[in-house]
Amino acid sequence: MAQECVFCRIVEGALPSTKVYEDEDTLAFMDTGPVVRGHTLVIPKVHVDPITETPPAVLQKLIVVVQRIARAQVKGLGADGINVTQANGRPAGQVVPHIHFHVIPRFASDGHSWNWRAGKYESAEQMSGYADRIAAALE
Amino acid sequence: MAQECVFCRIVEGALPSTKVYEDEDTLAFMDTGPVVRGHTLVIPKVHVDPITETPPAVLQKLIVVVQRIARAQVKGLGADGINVTQANGRPAGQVVPHIHFHVIPRFASDGHSWNWRAGKYESAEQMSGYADRIAAALE
Repeated sequence: MAQECVFCRIVEGALPSTKVYEDEDTLAFMDTGPVVRGHTLVIPKVHVDPITETPPAVLQKLIVVVQRIARAQVKGLGADGINVTQANGRPAGQVVPHIHFHVIPRFASDGHSWNWRAGKYESAEQMSGYADRIAAALE
Repeated sequence: MAQECVFCRIVEGALPSTKVYEDEDTLAFMDTGPVVRGHTLVIPKVHVDPITETPPAVLQKLIVVVQRIARAQVKGLGADGINVTQANGRPAGQVVPHIHFHVIPRFASDGHSWNWRAGKYESAEQMSGYADRIAAALE
């Protein structure tokens, strides 16, 4: 529990939230600034961040709840699609430094589009160079 | 294995890819149209899609590989942040219908920003209504 963390304060009930699901380890609640209405956040009750520092067992519990929320958005809201997103660090757009998955219901008519700019590599060798640097750092 | 699936063809070696990691169940390879260079895709070898239909055990294996790739992008590329994203259905922006996680290294200087438009609800009651519809559909 981190005293200055907004999500920890939601977990302990010191700040309000509109809950969707709760169990011993996990909380799911509405994002008050939804990209699309129905946008839900899934967090662990324990304060961990970012994904690189999160115990794998915590991630494994979270992703199953993410799936259940996605299914319920399809069934309960009639979503035509789902985005699952998770940001780590300010350069990635993260605002609250307590790991969280966004589960966002999508509709053919929702009017939203991501700024998905597919870039390119200058050469196959350049791409392989990136792959090699990642592979060499794997643990 | 779905014959018409590009990712299944990559898994079986019928189409080329630049691999980052492989084990019995999982493959990680470079996205050839990177949002940011180093952008890696993590897929299960089995053909499943979308997240709502994916066996939880498959998701749990994938998310641990996602974490390992994220760590390696930080260590190997010096990433300042990481985006993890996963799209289901055309309205969500999915192109290849074989479940995949995007692991995207972010740098303070990378020049990318998502089109993250925070919307709002007309009232607390409207937000609670969405939460209730999702919660009622949970299984």
